[in-house]
Amino acid sequence: MSNLPSQPTPTKLPLGFQWASTTAGIKASGKPDLALAVCPAGASAAAMFTSNQVVAAPVIVGRNHLATTGGRVTAVLVNSGNANCATGDLGVDACRRSCTATAEHFGCVFDEVFPSSTGIIGVPLPAEKLIGALPAAKAALGGSASHLTAFADAILTTDTKRKVARATLELDHGQTVQLFGCAKGAGMIGPHLIPHATMLVYLFTDLDATPAQLQSALTPAVETSFNSISIDGDMSTNDTVLLLASGKSGVHATEKVLQAFAEALRLVCESLAHQIVDDGEGVTHVVTLEISGARNDAEAKQIARTIASSPLCKTAWSSADPNWGRLLAAAGRAGIPFDPAQVSLNIAGLPVFAHGVRSPHFDEAATHAAMSQREYTVSLDLGQADGRTRFITCDLTHEYVSINADYST
Amino acid sequence: MSNLPSQPTPTKLPLGFQWASTTAGIKASGKPDLALAVCPAGASAAAMFTSNQVVAAPVIVGRNHLATTGGRVTAVLVNSGNANCATGDLGVDACRRSCTATAEHFGCVFDEVFPSSTGIIGVPLPAEKLIGALPAAKAALGGSASHLTAFADAILTTDTKRKVARATLELDHGQTVQLFGCAKGAGMIGPHLIPHATMLVYLFTDLDATPAQLQSALTPAVETSFNSISIDGDMSTNDTVLLLASGKSGVHATEKVLQAFAEALRLVCESLAHQIVDDGEGVTHVVTLEISGARNDAEAKQIARTIASSPLCKTAWSSADPNWGRLLAAAGRAGIPFDPAQVSLNIAGLPVFAHGVRSPHFDEAATHAAMSQREYTVSLDLGQADGRTRFITCDLTHEYVSINADYST
Repeated sequence: MSNLPSQPTPTKLPLGFQWASTTAGIKASGKPDLALAVCPAGASAAAMFTSNQVVAAPVIVGRNHLATTGGRVTAVLVNSGNANCATGDLGVDACRRSCTATAEHFGCVFDEVFPSSTGIIGVPLPAEKLIGALPAAKAALGGSASHLTAFADAILTTDTKRKVARATLELDHGQTVQLFGCAKGAGMIGPHLIPHATMLVYLFTDLDATPAQLQSALTPAVETSFNSISIDGDMSTNDTVLLLASGKSGVHATEKVLQAFAEALRLVCESLAHQIVDDGEGVTHVVTLEISGARNDAEAKQIARTIASSPLCKTAWSSADPNWGRLLAAAGRAGIPFDPAQVSLNIAGLPVFAHGVRSPHFDEAATHAAMSQREYTVSLDLGQADGRTRFITCDLTHEYVSINADYST
Repeated sequence: MSNLPSQPTPTKLPLGFQWASTTAGIKASGKPDLALAVCPAGASAAAMFTSNQVVAAPVIVGRNHLATTGGRVTAVLVNSGNANCATGDLGVDACRRSCTATAEHFGCVFDEVFPSSTGIIGVPLPAEKLIGALPAAKAALGGSASHLTAFADAILTTDTKRKVARATLELDHGQTVQLFGCAKGAGMIGPHLIPHATMLVYLFTDLDATPAQLQSALTPAVETSFNSISIDGDMSTNDTVLLLASGKSGVHATEKVLQAFAEALRLVCESLAHQIVDDGEGVTHVVTLEISGARNDAEAKQIARTIASSPLCKTAWSSADPNWGRLLAAAGRAGIPFDPAQVSLNIAGLPVFAHGVRSPHFDEAATHAAMSQREYTVSLDLGQADGRTRFITCDLTHEYVSINADYST
């Protein structure tokens, strides 16, 4: 698995899909804001959505469409610049009209169109702009790397980088399956997706698999990737991960193939999740939290999430400040019982706390130097049992405040 | 109840206490860092402490002392500049030695000394500095307003303002009971105190009451005050609220008196809690969250806490940005089920969201203007039942990042 170079060889793309982008005029910046992916023969689909109580219209509609079709998607219609959330029945209606218009262009039923939106919450979605831009998007469709990167770029909002990852499964008898994923998200990133997040992730493969098989691979992959990251802890109303399988590789998902695919999917999802944090709003340090020795994995993750959302930990990371007491204090307010005397804490492999006290080997200057790197790991062992997690997060900087103090104005 | 002017009339202070401060040399700044309060005849005491799993040595020792004495305190010894947390058995030992030395000065048993510390976590407490400064502190003791303000000032760390509040109970037959409280805390403020938090609060009264009576008044007062505020959501390892009653007013705590006292205590605690947020690190806006219509008060508070710890809400408040979608999104990730169509949201009394959509009366410019005031209220009604809470929080600013990116360096 590797990241997609700007011009990948076309043979490495999943077969059976076409992609395009265009400018529908939703973003004030005039940048591309409509992304379209089409699988003319129809794709098997699995998806996971935000667990926020407030969900955007496209989440309501997309969830409903997948349920109605049993996991069948012909077209994916994404707009950036407007989340179509907190827009009531009119928002749902705007979403449905967009889907219907898309279906007419591609000769499918309207519920085989999967909608997504990302952007500001609470502003009515101008469906007529989306619908009006469909002919141009249709005319721009193609199966090349440049078409795919156009799609991956049009879903971005405050992102500064395109986020893509891919994998190739080399199977017996020279068979290959291609998997390609792209993502957007730089703020309001604290996903907790459930099978039934404004992080948007689209995964395309040409494996021949059923929706149930795809879901069985997607759920665990999401748990260790997108559900194990946080930028600001603010779970979005629109988070969505969609996996589409065209079947055009001709490779059937036997148990063995599915196992290999699930592993490839996990790696692609983890790469995308890392890219999301790395491009997080104002991020200057990417910190991996390795929590171990917990009573179970869920408790380890709860501690990781609490540290990842601690303003005091995050501001200390921004200046490479080895103020490790803040890590302990944050762990201690996670609602998980533990004995501080059993805890050990390392930063970038350097010991800082053990046996209830500052490590005699604690070296403030060395720790500061290690924390001055863009990426490092914080390891916290609770000394209880075998529960563990790996969680990727980032610092909180002046730039984050600047970006978010001005969003809607 | 009113805030203490810089020179209150001496008659308004609780009888039976003496206060002092001195410089023990723990703070690098050279500012006063030892605060001492003495009740020579012994005071009834009730206290509440942080519910963090990681607690400082003085919390361990103070809790233990109150249990041993059944709620009896002769002296309160507070140091600022060092939290004596994550310092292991040596930290507990340093705390105990300080208590023992204090007890020798005041002719009480060591467990009638109540210790508190606030400052950086993980650095050994120099007990010898504290002990060495005790004679000077003792010599400085007195019962005047200036002595009390010296105490209130020496407990501060990153605070920019003294935080004090008081109440006088005027009872039948011309009897009066005085209540005075002081607090410190500007960062790592997300208290959740339980009866058995680095916010420190000391409440002095001359009411004649038992420890159990004091606790019965303190627990509900803390719930609506210190447990209903958040600056950064980072619950401290040292949070402590201590209420001492000297009995020197000669007023016995009958049921009727206790009821009046409890109400006065609640007002004093709510004033101090508000002062803490108002002086929060980098704060430019104080926002009161009024959550109503919840299934119960606990769910209302959980939603308030989630909004109060949302970086996206807090950064929007810093620029008076009426991006109310962030409020809804944060409420929706609190883990509390509700129907967005039943929710209504007002900012500073101005309608922004109702019936599932942006209010037709939403006026962006007017809302921005209202949010430009230093203080305003956000009202969120869930439309479910009668559960409600009132929670005070603040914005997240560049100044907060600056303050906390440099703490220990």
